[in-house]
Amino acid sequence: MDRIRAWAAPAAAEPLALRELDFGPLGAEDVEIAVEYCGICHSDLSVLENEWGASVYPCVPGHEAVGRIVAVGDSVKGRALGDRVGVGWNAGSCMHCRFCLSGSQQLCPQAQPTIMGHWGAFAERLRAHWAWTIPLPEGLDASAAGPLLCGGITVFAPLLTFQVKPTDRVGVVGIGGLGHMALLFLKHWGCEVTAFTSSPAKYEQVKALGAHRAISSRDPSAMGDIAGSLDFLLVTVNVPLDWNALMTTLAPHGRMHVVGAVLEPIPIQAMQLIQGQQSVSGSPTGSPVEIATMLDFAARHGIAPHVRHYPMSRVNEALEHLRSDRPPYRIVLDADF
Amino acid sequence: MDRIRAWAAPAAAEPLALRELDFGPLGAEDVEIAVEYCGICHSDLSVLENEWGASVYPCVPGHEAVGRIVAVGDSVKGRALGDRVGVGWNAGSCMHCRFCLSGSQQLCPQAQPTIMGHWGAFAERLRAHWAWTIPLPEGLDASAAGPLLCGGITVFAPLLTFQVKPTDRVGVVGIGGLGHMALLFLKHWGCEVTAFTSSPAKYEQVKALGAHRAISSRDPSAMGDIAGSLDFLLVTVNVPLDWNALMTTLAPHGRMHVVGAVLEPIPIQAMQLIQGQQSVSGSPTGSPVEIATMLDFAARHGIAPHVRHYPMSRVNEALEHLRSDRPPYRIVLDADF
Repeated sequence: MDRIRAWAAPAAAEPLALRELDFGPLGAEDVEIAVEYCGICHSDLSVLENEWGASVYPCVPGHEAVGRIVAVGDSVKGRALGDRVGVGWNAGSCMHCRFCLSGSQQLCPQAQPTIMGHWGAFAERLRAHWAWTIPLPEGLDASAAGPLLCGGITVFAPLLTFQVKPTDRVGVVGIGGLGHMALLFLKHWGCEVTAFTSSPAKYEQVKALGAHRAISSRDPSAMGDIAGSLDFLLVTVNVPLDWNALMTTLAPHGRMHVVGAVLEPIPIQAMQLIQGQQSVSGSPTGSPVEIATMLDFAARHGIAPHVRHYPMSRVNEALEHLRSDRPPYRIVLDADF
Repeated sequence: MDRIRAWAAPAAAEPLALRELDFGPLGAEDVEIAVEYCGICHSDLSVLENEWGASVYPCVPGHEAVGRIVAVGDSVKGRALGDRVGVGWNAGSCMHCRFCLSGSQQLCPQAQPTIMGHWGAFAERLRAHWAWTIPLPEGLDASAAGPLLCGGITVFAPLLTFQVKPTDRVGVVGIGGLGHMALLFLKHWGCEVTAFTSSPAKYEQVKALGAHRAISSRDPSAMGDIAGSLDFLLVTVNVPLDWNALMTTLAPHGRMHVVGAVLEPIPIQAMQLIQGQQSVSGSPTGSPVEIATMLDFAARHGIAPHVRHYPMSRVNEALEHLRSDRPPYRIVLDADF
């Protein structure tokens, strides 16, 4: 079908309203997916509010989509009608640059974000390049899988990229949507895990997610206890932190890896990096193969994000809940057109 | 001999004066070296001036030493009287911690710097743990090898650690003592090399050292030409730079690696790290095996730092030359006791 219904924002920071979109003809390499579920990611809020200055309106958010393929273009490979697939931050890439051809499609200069200059998945249908539609493995709960496709891969890909080892000591800063998924992965990755959260109310929940200890980065005594011990420190929050204090937790050879879009510059002490032979790094989402690898890992270990469901028709209420409460779980919209 | 002559500073920022030191008995795992040559490194100045607050006086600088072993302790392994060896930033480490036992001895918490709390090589004799005395390979010019042992390994070790590939595009910031050695190594490493220097007067010299191009980081047009192209950017200067401009030269997956002891925090944009999947890192000197690997590489390719010799008795004049002129070569003192 060419005309589909979608929840769209007409302009920055306005509520979403139901409208009809004209999809036009399906691209030869694209598939069309009947959306079943779509997670809400904090970057949906950022794009709705044009925080990065790159939003296009009307804007249809939604980039943690799960659904079944209902149409395939003439040149689609490896996907068939009826396949249940997921789509995350990217809905396409050029497929011919050196990044695409070397398996780092997420770094393609022409990578097409699902929700900027493209209509996202708070909609009946979503279109995407076949390579960016990742088949869901058997045994994965489709109704909770959406958040893996953006938030999940954002914290999972660094474990692959930097070859985090089961013997490593790992810290996770910020136990919200991303952080709680990081804890779930790390529990099954074999690591010794320290969760950093500023709210002691979360300590028990954090341990239930698999962390061996929970501390506040504002507690000098607790910070002293773990000084110089962490091999990998994953920062999932997007607000300024006491970066010097966090860096002191790193072991020699340690790495602080940032996946939260902190807008203020992070002040790094060269002498600390030099003396400890340490690194600071960042990464966006993952490649299609990394996403597939993550979904296999999640299925094998029964890893499912903690989610709260809303019918998609209550999307504005769900967005407000995420914005105001920053809940320590992910929200999933169930399509109800 | 227990009493030896050395050039020592009695207190911070005072000139060196000849004095006698009492070495006492030789440690069981130590060797004693008759110093033939010793390079001057910028960190000799930093320690003489107590810039890092960790200097001990009287201070005998000198940590780019070449000489012959004239005494060995009872438990020395793999070294014999008459061996010609080099000693760099470290003169010892505990040899039993996990860093020492895993081959990263430079990260040992008890690593003994050659010139802080230990008498350095502006002296007749130098003592060091046998493992930190690196045999010089055949074919290496001993009179020019000193600067490899600290400055050289500082820029060489990152090529090993981060597995810089001959197909990589590499930038070197600052073409002084360290930077010119980096260019010499990279010429034989097979990389495409860009040298960053603020003085156009150095452009021809820099190309003669093997760089494919020389540019100023303050030239927006030249910086625009190489934007997004460098896989590895080695920063050898220790003064604040336009870090944002330098970071824009990095390719996706690129790394800016800092070996200059910049004291001001380096402001890093998280979004840049995230979008380009990039890293910022630092490192100190290298391990004994890394130093030996470098010396073999230098001998095989005929790599010799550009040096200017002074007799050691003119050490104060040589220090002043380094301090004032920041020459694009290294200074080596020839022992003349």
